[in-house]
Amino acid sequence: MQWEFVGSGAALLTMFGFVPQILKIYRTESVADVSLFMLLQFFVGIFLWLLYGIHIQDKILIVSNAVSFLTLIVAIGLYLKYRKNK
Amino acid sequence: MQWEFVGSGAALLTMFGFVPQILKIYRTESVADVSLFMLLQFFVGIFLWLLYGIHIQDKILIVSNAVSFLTLIVAIGLYLKYRKNK
Repeated sequence: MQWEFVGSGAALLTMFGFVPQILKIYRTESVADVSLFMLLQFFVGIFLWLLYGIHIQDKILIVSNAVSFLTLIVAIGLYLKYRKNK
Repeated sequence: MQWEFVGSGAALLTMFGFVPQILKIYRTESVADVSLFMLLQFFVGIFLWLLYGIHIQDKILIVSNAVSFLTLIVAIGLYLKYRKNK
């Protein structure tokens, strides 16, 4: 098996993992069933991964967590925008 | 800074990142705004991380992705159970 493909696939799928949720919120303008706590917990967790990646100077950790972090900012922004729509 | 705490905090927050969403689905029995595609994308991505972790024999990668993988099975199971509730 080509392990580089496994690792790259893992990184790509998870770093863009929140994109389908972002698109769904954008389309439906509704977030009633989405857990804000989930988004905030990932926001802090991914930020710590990013700091840790910078500390150990691991490019893959830095890039993938930077991308995830940006998607979480968008997701949380949309959540706050649409939280009053029921 | 104690970098071990940063890394451990990052791992703990993200490995249990879907737990708040699981609790919310369990409580509300509603998943209309949750993206199934998000859950499935993480399911496959985390599974690939798990395989990759086993390949490079990295304990942290194995344990944290095994935990995430289990939470995703629960989340997807609850999603399918409550998807007909509107």
